[in-house]
Amino acid sequence: MLRVAVLGAGRIGKIHAANVAGNPKAKLVTVADPFGTAAGNLADHLGCEASLDPIKAIERTDVDAVVVGTPTDTHVSLTLHAVKMGKAVLCEKPIDLDIAKVDAAVHEIERLNGRVMVAFNRRFDPSARQLRRSIDAGEIGDVRQVIITSRDPGMPPHEYVRHSGGIFRDMVIHDFDMARWLLGEEPIEVMATASRLVDSGLAELDDFDTVMVQMRTASGRQCHINCCREAVYGYDQRMEIFGSAGMLLNENLRATTVRRWSKTETEAREPLLNFFLERYADAYKAELDQFVGALESSSPMPTTPYDGRQALRLADCALESVLTGRAVKV
Amino acid sequence: MLRVAVLGAGRIGKIHAANVAGNPKAKLVTVADPFGTAAGNLADHLGCEASLDPIKAIERTDVDAVVVGTPTDTHVSLTLHAVKMGKAVLCEKPIDLDIAKVDAAVHEIERLNGRVMVAFNRRFDPSARQLRRSIDAGEIGDVRQVIITSRDPGMPPHEYVRHSGGIFRDMVIHDFDMARWLLGEEPIEVMATASRLVDSGLAELDDFDTVMVQMRTASGRQCHINCCREAVYGYDQRMEIFGSAGMLLNENLRATTVRRWSKTETEAREPLLNFFLERYADAYKAELDQFVGALESSSPMPTTPYDGRQALRLADCALESVLTGRAVKV
Amino acid sequence: MLRVAVLGAGRIGKIHAANVAGNPKAKLVTVADPFGTAAGNLADHLGCEASLDPIKAIERTDVDAVVVGTPTDTHVSLTLHAVKMGKAVLCEKPIDLDIAKVDAAVHEIERLNGRVMVAFNRRFDPSARQLRRSIDAGEIGDVRQVIITSRDPGMPPHEYVRHSGGIFRDMVIHDFDMARWLLGEEPIEVMATASRLVDSGLAELDDFDTVMVQMRTASGRQCHINCCREAVYGYDQRMEIFGSAGMLLNENLRATTVRRWSKTETEAREPLLNFFLERYADAYKAELDQFVGALESSSPMPTTPYDGRQALRLADCALESVLTGRAVKV
Amino acid sequence: MLRVAVLGAGRIGKIHAANVAGNPKAKLVTVADPFGTAAGNLADHLGCEASLDPIKAIERTDVDAVVVGTPTDTHVSLTLHAVKMGKAVLCEKPIDLDIAKVDAAVHEIERLNGRVMVAFNRRFDPSARQLRRSIDAGEIGDVRQVIITSRDPGMPPHEYVRHSGGIFRDMVIHDFDMARWLLGEEPIEVMATASRLVDSGLAELDDFDTVMVQMRTASGRQCHINCCREAVYGYDQRMEIFGSAGMLLNENLRATTVRRWSKTETEAREPLLNFFLERYADAYKAELDQFVGALESSSPMPTTPYDGRQALRLADCALESVLTGRAVKV
Repeated sequence: MLRVAVLGAGRIGKIHAANVAGNPKAKLVTVADPFGTAAGNLADHLGCEASLDPIKAIERTDVDAVVVGTPTDTHVSLTLHAVKMGKAVLCEKPIDLDIAKVDAAVHEIERLNGRVMVAFNRRFDPSARQLRRSIDAGEIGDVRQVIITSRDPGMPPHEYVRHSGGIFRDMVIHDFDMARWLLGEEPIEVMATASRLVDSGLAELDDFDTVMVQMRTASGRQCHINCCREAVYGYDQRMEIFGSAGMLLNENLRATTVRRWSKTETEAREPLLNFFLERYADAYKAELDQFVGALESSSPMPTTPYDGRQALRLADCALESVLTGRAVKV
Repeated sequence: MLRVAVLGAGRIGKIHAANVAGNPKAKLVTVADPFGTAAGNLADHLGCEASLDPIKAIERTDVDAVVVGTPTDTHVSLTLHAVKMGKAVLCEKPIDLDIAKVDAAVHEIERLNGRVMVAFNRRFDPSARQLRRSIDAGEIGDVRQVIITSRDPGMPPHEYVRHSGGIFRDMVIHDFDMARWLLGEEPIEVMATASRLVDSGLAELDDFDTVMVQMRTASGRQCHINCCREAVYGYDQRMEIFGSAGMLLNENLRATTVRRWSKTETEAREPLLNFFLERYADAYKAELDQFVGALESSSPMPTTPYDGRQALRLADCALESVLTGRAVKV
Repeated sequence: MLRVAVLGAGRIGKIHAANVAGNPKAKLVTVADPFGTAAGNLADHLGCEASLDPIKAIERTDVDAVVVGTPTDTHVSLTLHAVKMGKAVLCEKPIDLDIAKVDAAVHEIERLNGRVMVAFNRRFDPSARQLRRSIDAGEIGDVRQVIITSRDPGMPPHEYVRHSGGIFRDMVIHDFDMARWLLGEEPIEVMATASRLVDSGLAELDDFDTVMVQMRTASGRQCHINCCREAVYGYDQRMEIFGSAGMLLNENLRATTVRRWSKTETEAREPLLNFFLERYADAYKAELDQFVGALESSSPMPTTPYDGRQALRLADCALESVLTGRAVKV
Repeated sequence: MLRVAVLGAGRIGKIHAANVAGNPKAKLVTVADPFGTAAGNLADHLGCEASLDPIKAIERTDVDAVVVGTPTDTHVSLTLHAVKMGKAVLCEKPIDLDIAKVDAAVHEIERLNGRVMVAFNRRFDPSARQLRRSIDAGEIGDVRQVIITSRDPGMPPHEYVRHSGGIFRDMVIHDFDMARWLLGEEPIEVMATASRLVDSGLAELDDFDTVMVQMRTASGRQCHINCCREAVYGYDQRMEIFGSAGMLLNENLRATTVRRWSKTETEAREPLLNFFLERYADAYKAELDQFVGALESSSPMPTTPYDGRQALRLADCALESVLTGRAVKV
């Protein structure tokens, strides 16, 4: 039974804490959050201890592993502290918004032989896993092109955007990770274009809301990503993999399979599952399962700090491409 | 080159005449219709001769084959006359509304070795043909159940209904033919239920607008048919064939493949093709092709007067089942 | 917190016990099963007490409610005993295979003001609920026809069939309940046909494997049900509701949304979820939620012994129709 | 009645000639092709005159309009000659592979007030037209992103590739035209990447088989195009338009709507229509209709030499982007 402390009792911390509590191989020991009553309320609900001090939660002798779900700028220090205390870590993405800090952290984790998994939840989505399994099984031969569509249902507030690191580091970073995973090779070249079509006010924040990215690997495999901060029809998450022997794609999720025929439209389906907490509920559960399972069997972490580093690097390259109008070498 | 006279210049006659005119192996010699300017207008449009006398059109020496698209109560006499004149016939369904007259006609056609095809257009629909081809190829093993959905977009006027022979003989007759064709065996037992859910005024005409039929063959294969005179979402024509090794189904047709996502609905498609002239445009063309081809190669007619007789017999059994509350033996 | 005893530690008992254990408003007190180590193993796994005596489990003072998941022939006696002890009951379907015993039990439960819910799991499937919600919201106007497809993935062993009560009481009973629920009116007439197309050996057991049922309500609404004990492509569970203002249908469930294109086929999807435990996992959870919720709020049971009685009555009528070749009045 | 000469009796010439012959408002006067018996055979089949001399065919006084379906390097001279003779022209794309020659030709046609339509057949596909109509009707608000997938079923021979102008000018040119049409604005910036994943031998021809293109308009609208010379599952032609109020997409065409369920796969559909002659059969017909209709009503040509020029310009920019690794300004 893995004894777990969850750091952060916000939106994502609540998901992780509930999944720990519901996992038959894990025990939720404590939830820590320095802000107000968040930890207390969550702990009450899930039947564990609460703490205002993440450091103390890490250092508890009855804690084997830590889930870091705090604000991004605390990820590195909490993760490194936990590693030094000999605790395994599941750290939310991104590790940090600054590639130099990330590189240093990755290096330090490796030096300490830390057991750290970076939480790229989408890799654990059942459909994403099936895509990968089908590729691995050779169902579509050699991968030629990967197409990723990733649109959020609505703009976050400017206050969020200001601290987000920008659309490439905050939003597209998931898709960069997915691209690496599905391509099966590292992208070596990135071209990006970016616009403000939803909110022209983003100019003040030097950010964008609508982007396209195009990448190439050394062997010539190609990837396209398109993202937008707002899609009125909901959270749009699709992938297509085109290979020498076939093609695969997944579809969006809905609450039911009902289709409706009326005088004006036929086969109409419900809106898509909104938002990521709901759309990826199964993925978050599977992510924790894999974390617990990898620790139990001492097998490699399913996603690593290096994965976190590479996704951030691609985000930085994309931004540079937008600013320079060049294909940027990774 | 098959020289053809089309009898009847109404809705269905126009379709047949245009298909003859457009068929590279056929020549439209004349169009005959006793009512007003219908024949003249159609002949002008298609560049052939017009006539007010179907009999004379049949008897022309430069006519090899006749398409009978006149009102139902003239089908038998025109068809038999053509057969006696040695002409091949493509006769619209039903041959007649009275089974005794039909039996006599079928017998007479056989006695005279007449070349007569009964126009069950749906058998020539590309999707229907693919269903049949897949069954024949053994793709779904032995057929167990056939499910047919057949809904018209809207009620015809009472005046039409009064002379139609009732919903079973007028509308479901197509589905009875399709059932025989897809089951690959003759139904031996018919159970039916009938309601007036669209127009209670049909009670005066002893007719119904919403029916279900259930049939069984000697080996135990089963078929369900559901029909309604009105479906607000359009002309609904679907078939499902369930077998020991799999299942097949077809879908309705639309003008384009476009799907639409909006705030309230996703994947919504356009309304279905309305009505049979549009939905089965390709089927009518293929039907004529097969008629011409069978005559050219002296091969058997794709659909026979016997098929017309059997479909009518099933319609009569269904009506009897409604009236008696019994499973009627065919 | 509702304190619950689960009676029966077989396939269905395990599902109910796990759902009670995972329900935040319920507490799994004990699992009782007289056969071998089943109860002990399940109790160990879920962290509750085990018992070999269902009667004692019912009588525990720390038990408020009982889930009856034992063999069918014990349902009535255990349910009535629990009712007499003042316990609420969630009883698996069918209440009994004999309509007279069921009628007596329903009467006795009513006399005692028993709180009993009959477990028709399919009503709690998210798509089924959405169908019903859409009907209630008037999205398709007045219901005209309901079409239910219900095919199991494979034949059960003869030993199971022998004690099952036959295909109508064992399998179609779910669809009879669904039909009543979706029609919004009681069927008054039943016509059925039945064949042995999967296993001719069923003749010795006087049972069938492939059936069709057709029903009518007093206002003329119609329902068709088709069932087969074996569908090689998986557990096929579909419903279609056709109304005066539109049409609704649901689709089968799969583990993922992936579609595959290859040289020979396009858009191919995975096999369907097999079997009912997996297909209706969410429905079983929701069913228990509703049971707990209804007790908590003292609101009516979502499904009642009367529902169980009516579904069995329709099954008996269907069998009678097969044997007599008549439309049977309910 | 528009009197038409078709120049070129190859693959595309045959399509145009048959469509002219079948068009009720046009008359096929002659087919001209200098190579062997091609013109003679086609003319025999369609019942018109044949000629070995395109120039003479243009100059016939009983010819009002000319369809240019000859090899690309003759398009400019034949088109200009026809314009000088006062004939209307439907010219196959591309006008020429050399942008300077195209610019000069466009200028000359304008100077002479020539009536010239460039044959971008895909704009006339029913689904493409519906997409455009829906955009124009405001169904999806302001266009933000256009995604075009365009994959051929198989590699053409090297001999074809050698004279094709390369994948951007030969294949992607259709998609560049579609992009301009659907974006509703001119792209001002092009980024492209290109690989040889199907046939490494293309290196000798300085050509590629797998490409991605990304473009931006002045207002910030974005477009992605992906192309490959080979898709084993068939001719893949899809478009997606994402806007501020919704999303639209079309699907590929198949011969029928049949879906198949088996032990291993569900909902599998047939392969896609192959190749462009079959896939765009309706589009070619509609293209000719529009040409004839525009001449009859003296309204503007639906597609112009300028459209042909712009598509070629984008192709040249894409190639330059591949070679320089820069975003190329149009």
